[in-house]
Amino acid sequence: MNIVLLSGGSGKRLWPLSNDIRSKQFIKIFKKEDGTYESMVQRVYRQIRKADANAIVTIATSKTQVSSIHNQLGSSVGISIEPCRRDTFPAIALATAYLVDVMHVDPKESVVVCPVDPYVEQDYFEAVRGLSEQADKGEANLVLMGIEPTYPSEKYGYIIPENEEHTSMVKSFKEKPDVKTAEEYIAKGALWNGGVFAYKLQYVLDKAHELIDFTDYQDLFDKYETLNKISFDYAVVEKEDKIQVQRFSGQWKDLGTWNTLTEAMGEKVVGKGILNDTCEDVHIINEMDVPVLAMGLKDVVISASPEGILVSDKEQSSYIKPYVDGIEQQIMFAEKSWGSYQVIDVENGSMTIKVTLNAGHSMNYHSHKNRDEIWVVIAGEGTTIVDGMKQNVKVGDVITMCAGCRHTIRAVTELKLVEVQLGKEIHAEDKQKYPLEK
Amino acid sequence: MNIVLLSGGSGKRLWPLSNDIRSKQFIKIFKKEDGTYESMVQRVYRQIRKADANAIVTIATSKTQVSSIHNQLGSSVGISIEPCRRDTFPAIALATAYLVDVMHVDPKESVVVCPVDPYVEQDYFEAVRGLSEQADKGEANLVLMGIEPTYPSEKYGYIIPENEEHTSMVKSFKEKPDVKTAEEYIAKGALWNGGVFAYKLQYVLDKAHELIDFTDYQDLFDKYETLNKISFDYAVVEKEDKIQVQRFSGQWKDLGTWNTLTEAMGEKVVGKGILNDTCEDVHIINEMDVPVLAMGLKDVVISASPEGILVSDKEQSSYIKPYVDGIEQQIMFAEKSWGSYQVIDVENGSMTIKVTLNAGHSMNYHSHKNRDEIWVVIAGEGTTIVDGMKQNVKVGDVITMCAGCRHTIRAVTELKLVEVQLGKEIHAEDKQKYPLEK
Repeated sequence: MNIVLLSGGSGKRLWPLSNDIRSKQFIKIFKKEDGTYESMVQRVYRQIRKADANAIVTIATSKTQVSSIHNQLGSSVGISIEPCRRDTFPAIALATAYLVDVMHVDPKESVVVCPVDPYVEQDYFEAVRGLSEQADKGEANLVLMGIEPTYPSEKYGYIIPENEEHTSMVKSFKEKPDVKTAEEYIAKGALWNGGVFAYKLQYVLDKAHELIDFTDYQDLFDKYETLNKISFDYAVVEKEDKIQVQRFSGQWKDLGTWNTLTEAMGEKVVGKGILNDTCEDVHIINEMDVPVLAMGLKDVVISASPEGILVSDKEQSSYIKPYVDGIEQQIMFAEKSWGSYQVIDVENGSMTIKVTLNAGHSMNYHSHKNRDEIWVVIAGEGTTIVDGMKQNVKVGDVITMCAGCRHTIRAVTELKLVEVQLGKEIHAEDKQKYPLEK
Repeated sequence: MNIVLLSGGSGKRLWPLSNDIRSKQFIKIFKKEDGTYESMVQRVYRQIRKADANAIVTIATSKTQVSSIHNQLGSSVGISIEPCRRDTFPAIALATAYLVDVMHVDPKESVVVCPVDPYVEQDYFEAVRGLSEQADKGEANLVLMGIEPTYPSEKYGYIIPENEEHTSMVKSFKEKPDVKTAEEYIAKGALWNGGVFAYKLQYVLDKAHELIDFTDYQDLFDKYETLNKISFDYAVVEKEDKIQVQRFSGQWKDLGTWNTLTEAMGEKVVGKGILNDTCEDVHIINEMDVPVLAMGLKDVVISASPEGILVSDKEQSSYIKPYVDGIEQQIMFAEKSWGSYQVIDVENGSMTIKVTLNAGHSMNYHSHKNRDEIWVVIAGEGTTIVDGMKQNVKVGDVITMCAGCRHTIRAVTELKLVEVQLGKEIHAEDKQKYPLEK
C-alpha cells in the first residue's frame, strides 16, 4: 500500500503545547503499553505499519516539520516537502509526483491520501487498505472513505451514497450543514467526509498536467511558489463523475481541541501533576519540571509548557485561538534537525538557553553580528570548530565566542550545553551560515 | 510608640508562593498607588510609619527571615532573632529584653505586640496606638485589642468584656468555639481576640525573670535553646487579673489561605495573565516569565512560581497542606542576605542557577567538595576572589572553579551571573565557609 499523510501547519488551538513552530501532531501525549508516550503522528505511523508492514509512507508537509518528523519517525519515512503553502491540490500533486519520480512507484499503482492526525483504532487502517484495493480495481477514479455519523455534526462535509452497500457510487457531496440539515442528511444515509481517499497515481498526475505546466517532480517543486492556491476538492472532486465511497463504522475522532484531545487520553495526568479527590473530569498535561496541583475543579484542562500555562473549562477551550493570537512571545522551545533547544532565562542584555545535540549531529557553522556567546558543556562529548579551529570538548569545558566568530559543535555522544548569549540586541534572525571546509 | 511584630514561620498554605523557606508575609501581592507591589510585611510597616513616624519597630523572628526582612524593609528596622522556635512567651520575653538592653528603651515605656500579617486599613494602627496609650496609663497590666465580630467564626478565641465601653476590663476568655457557641458569645457582647496586646516593658521583664534564670538580653539569647516551649497566653494572660480590652470595629482580615488572600487583592491578575470574559471571580498570581491563560472558570485561584503551579477552587484551597507536604522538591528560588538565586535548569550531573547580587553585597567565601562551578557574568560589575586571588569582573567574563577551590564574588553594581554546577552529587549542604582575609 502507498499512503500519503497530509501533515498540516502549525496551530494554536492546543496552546501552550502547539504554537507557531510546533504542531499538535508531534505532542507526545498517548501512553503506550510500555509506559512511554507517543505523538499522533507516531501513533498513526505505528498503526499503518501494523496494517501493512511494507506500506510506502510519504508525509506531505512544510520544511519546518522535517526535523520533528525525522526525530519522531526515523529517517526511512518519505517526506514530500512543500516549499510553501499552496492548498491541497498542489500539495497532493507534488506528493504524487514524488512517489512516481523519487520513490519510483509504478503510476498504475494506487495511493491513499489521509490526514496525519485522526485518532483511530487499528480497524481504520484496515479500511484504508480497503480503499487502496478498491482503487486498484479501477471501477472509479476516486474512492472515498465515508464515516458512519454518530451525531448530526456541523463540523464535517457529508457524502450521499447511491446505496447502502459497503462500496457504493457517490450520488452527491454536501457542505458543512447546520444541525437540522445534518439530521436530514443522516436520515437519507449520508456519511461524514473524513478527507480520506484513494486514486491511481496516473489519475492525479494527468489532472496535475492539465492544470499545471511541469515536466516532473523536481520541476514542480522548483516552480511550486508560482502555483495558484486551489483545493483538491475544487480542482478534482467536484469535476469528477466516477467516485465511489466505502463505509467505515469504527471509532474516528478529530483531536483538534483540548476538549476532544483529553477525551482520547488514557489517563488524567501526563507529566508532574496531582489531582485532589474533589476534582472531576480534570486533565493535566504538564511538560514543565515543576508539579501542577489541581483542587476542587470540574471539566477543566490544565496544560503547562515552557511557552505558558493554560487553565480552561473544556468546552471553552475551543475558543482559545484569539487569546493565544494576542500573546506576543518568543519561542521558548524548539525541535531541530540536530536536537532541540530551550530558553531557560531571559534578561535585559542576555538570554540563556539549553541546547541538546543528538549523537552524530551538529548545528550549522554560523556566526552572529550582534552577540557574544559562551558555551558550557554539561553532558556528553563532542568537537567544536571555532574560526576554523577544531577541538574536542567534554563536560565542564567552556567555549567563548565573540560576535563575528564562526562556530559549530558536533556531538559524538548525546551532548548538552548551556549557551549564554550576550548583547544589546539578541534576535534569532541574527545568524549567518557558512559552509564547513572538510 | 514601640511595637513588636511577631513574624511567624514558613507555611505551605499559600504554595507555590510560600514554602519551607519563604513565608507568606514576604509575597509581593498588593498593588500600591504607584503601580508597584508590596508584601504584607511592607504594607504593615508602611501603615505603622504613617500612624507614628517615630515608632520603634522590632520584628521578632527566626534567622531564616532576616535576609527577606532587610531586603524588604531596609536595614533600620530592629530584628529580635529567635535562635530557635520556643513558642510565644520566650519570643516575647526575648523581644522585650531586646528593646530594653539593645534599643535602650526605658522599661517604663509600653510596647504593643502584634502579628506581622493582618490585612487592615490605617484605622487599625490608630487603634494600636490607642492600646499603647492605654497601657501607659497603668490601669491594667495588659491591654488587648478586641475586634468586633462580623460573623460567628470558629477560627478565633473570644474575649468577654465587663461592659460595652470603648475600654473595659476583661471578664473572661473563651477558646475557639463551634458556630452555635460563637453566636451565644456574640449575643453577650464578646469580641474576637486578634492577638494584639500592649504592656509596659518592665511587666514582661518581671514575668520573664520569674520563669527564666537570666541576666540580660544577651544571656537570654545565649540560653534560648534550653528554654521550655510555653505560650504567652499560658504563661502570662491566664494568670493575670488586671486585663483591659479596647474595641476595634474596622476592617481586619487574616490572610492565611488563597481564598482570603485573593479577597483582599485589588486586582484579578498579578504577573502575566489573561482571563477570558467567561471567567468569574478568578485570580491569577503568576511569578513566572510565561503567560497564564484562564478560560471559562469560576471561583478559581491560579498561582505559578518556580516551585510549581496551583489551580484550585477557592473554597478547596484551604485544604492544600497535605497535598503540598506530599510534594518532594528542591527549593527553586530563595532570597538571601546578599540577593537571590533561582534554579533555571536541572540535569543529571548538573544544575544551572541564576544568581543576583545586590550592589555592595557579596556571598560567603566558600568551597564545595563534590562539584565544580562555572560563573558567567550576565549583568553588572564586581570583584571575585578565587583561592585568594582578587580580580575585577564584568559582563561576559567567565570564572571556573574546581571542587575544593575557595571562591566569592562581590557586586559593585547589581550583578547577575549564570552559575553552572557540575558533579555527580550536587547538594545545597556541600558548602564549606571560610573567613575572608582582608
